[in-house]
Amino acid sequence: MALRVGVVGGGQLARMMVPAAVELGLDIRVLAEGPGMSAAIAATAEGDHRDVDVVRAFARDVDVLTFDHEHVPQDVLRTLVEHGVVVRPGPAPLGVAQDKIVMRQRLTELGLPVPDWAAVHDQTELRAFLDAHGGRAVVKTPRGGYDGKGVRVVTDASDADDWFTAAAETGAGQALLAEELVPFTRELAQSVARRPSGEIVAWPLVETVQRDGVCAEVIAPAPRSAGRLADEAEAIAVRIARELDVTGVLAVELFQTDDERILVNELAMRPHNTGHWTIDGSTTSQFEQHLRAVLDLPLGATGTHAPVAVMVNVLGGPADGDLGARYPGALEAFPEAKYHFYGKAPRPGRKVGHVTVVGEDVDDVVFRARAAAAHFDD
Amino acid sequence: MALRVGVVGGGQLARMMVPAAVELGLDIRVLAEGPGMSAAIAATAEGDHRDVDVVRAFARDVDVLTFDHEHVPQDVLRTLVEHGVVVRPGPAPLGVAQDKIVMRQRLTELGLPVPDWAAVHDQTELRAFLDAHGGRAVVKTPRGGYDGKGVRVVTDASDADDWFTAAAETGAGQALLAEELVPFTRELAQSVARRPSGEIVAWPLVETVQRDGVCAEVIAPAPRSAGRLADEAEAIAVRIARELDVTGVLAVELFQTDDERILVNELAMRPHNTGHWTIDGSTTSQFEQHLRAVLDLPLGATGTHAPVAVMVNVLGGPADGDLGARYPGALEAFPEAKYHFYGKAPRPGRKVGHVTVVGEDVDDVVFRARAAAAHFDD
Repeated sequence: MALRVGVVGGGQLARMMVPAAVELGLDIRVLAEGPGMSAAIAATAEGDHRDVDVVRAFARDVDVLTFDHEHVPQDVLRTLVEHGVVVRPGPAPLGVAQDKIVMRQRLTELGLPVPDWAAVHDQTELRAFLDAHGGRAVVKTPRGGYDGKGVRVVTDASDADDWFTAAAETGAGQALLAEELVPFTRELAQSVARRPSGEIVAWPLVETVQRDGVCAEVIAPAPRSAGRLADEAEAIAVRIARELDVTGVLAVELFQTDDERILVNELAMRPHNTGHWTIDGSTTSQFEQHLRAVLDLPLGATGTHAPVAVMVNVLGGPADGDLGARYPGALEAFPEAKYHFYGKAPRPGRKVGHVTVVGEDVDDVVFRARAAAAHFDD
Repeated sequence: MALRVGVVGGGQLARMMVPAAVELGLDIRVLAEGPGMSAAIAATAEGDHRDVDVVRAFARDVDVLTFDHEHVPQDVLRTLVEHGVVVRPGPAPLGVAQDKIVMRQRLTELGLPVPDWAAVHDQTELRAFLDAHGGRAVVKTPRGGYDGKGVRVVTDASDADDWFTAAAETGAGQALLAEELVPFTRELAQSVARRPSGEIVAWPLVETVQRDGVCAEVIAPAPRSAGRLADEAEAIAVRIARELDVTGVLAVELFQTDDERILVNELAMRPHNTGHWTIDGSTTSQFEQHLRAVLDLPLGATGTHAPVAVMVNVLGGPADGDLGARYPGALEAFPEAKYHFYGKAPRPGRKVGHVTVVGEDVDDVVFRARAAAAHFDD
């Protein structure tokens, strides 16, 4: 009988696990939020991932449970584990990914390089942080943010009042995360995969280009990163994976600073947008690797097909909603590009797909990947 | 709305179209023979492909209908077309692929190189063919054969009596195909894809190794094939695709003779075992290309990731039926190999999966692909 993997969440990350599972002969099942989700083709159940009974029923017949996102509550995760469900990554590492303040605390305890930070409970504490950091800071809600949501640059202690009020109203007395505004020259990301028996593999360090807080492009490997920078990034990601007991794919988003340090920005314990290039650019995609890792199967080789791979997100898509009408032009203009769409309706700013091109010369590959993706812009 | 492709037949070829469709954002639907087929993940209907009502109902909501196999009867195909279903490849080219005598007639009319052949209706005609060919011939049933079934080497005119009797009993008075036993040094295969608007692309010519009439290994590109041989094979396949109006993937199986000619052996108008290497070895896999071609979308680049790709079939699998138990050993020994399984229960001689390795040196790549696949042998 085929090995069975259950994925909680029916978004594009679950969707892109499907081809890997089909090729490898795995039985993949998805607990989708509802009908018509990106991963609908593998959806065997629909329901709320915060409902322990829904998730337990879904998990009954799988060998391992893993995730499209990090939003399954800790009490649900721990109940699953108590009832013998194999949950990977487990509740402990996921707890670190779920709360940005916990994440900062753990990374600081481990002595890993992070921006200056503080948990601030009110205007007074935020003002103190601003005063100590030149009057500017990034404030983040510890939970639930993604793609730039829940992140704000502030210059006045009153700029986060609405979030303080919201936090007070939940009665949790939850703090906000204040961070120094890092003077970075660029953003990088390091993905690794780790399986329970301890094996870890890394893909090359990549450069990521963000627009409006959303990943727009990824260049693999990051230009001018060979040597110390790549070694340091890999060492950081490997250390986090080991110390936090991460299983599956771990993506570490990094800042490269003006003074050539690298600082950890965010963590994701699942396949990540910065690793989509691996589908077409690496011997083992992050989606196949995640499945191998959570099943505790030996990990695949992470070599690359070509010197450069560039991934460009299709954000929004055409205003008329008709992605299909754009295929002929794009495919004809760039027959070497790999086109990926997520079965999502176009909507401004929404990640509806991505395009990857591999090749020899970074400028040429960037150009072609952008031009191919632009066929799907409004 | 996503472009919708319907596939008749739920075998491994339909299964391997699923990853390509998911990545490209297509809506793929499969008419499976029953539950638990290889392509079950995309099965939206189950039923008999010989029943016109079943196929018409399945085809109602798709933009194009294509196939996992060539067994849909001509009357069903023609009824579909009459009712406005877009069928690719169409009834006319499929008719040539469905009957080996028709195929030989058409190729002969086109002046393409084929083995000596004759349609033989009885012992007398077969004896005449044997007498003219040194007392040996290959006899084939014109329809329904695959993987060496329906193919027999004969040395006496009575050796095909059972097939003559069976043909007489059907009342069709159907002939058998007699062919010269070609003195070949090796077998080759040339795959191309053609779309209705006329565009054709070709992958490199490959060498195929058959065991007991079943494809065992494929080496891409075929060693010592650059230049004249590759050009001739591509020209033959392109000519067949054009002249027969094939849409989708066309695989042409070829003999390379002792005297350095190439002769057409068989045709398949769908993705084919000899093209499985393209999943991991080419920019565009035969499965993605088939979908693009039947949708009349511009075709993808057919460049290769590495100088050599070798595919080895997993035939039979372990006697205890437990393929999953073999994963850890295989994946650990060959992390660079790509493993593909079809969701089929192991059974002697059955194609249950394949392994592909790409690399620089043909001997090294052949060794690693064979050794990786051997982990799944009994």
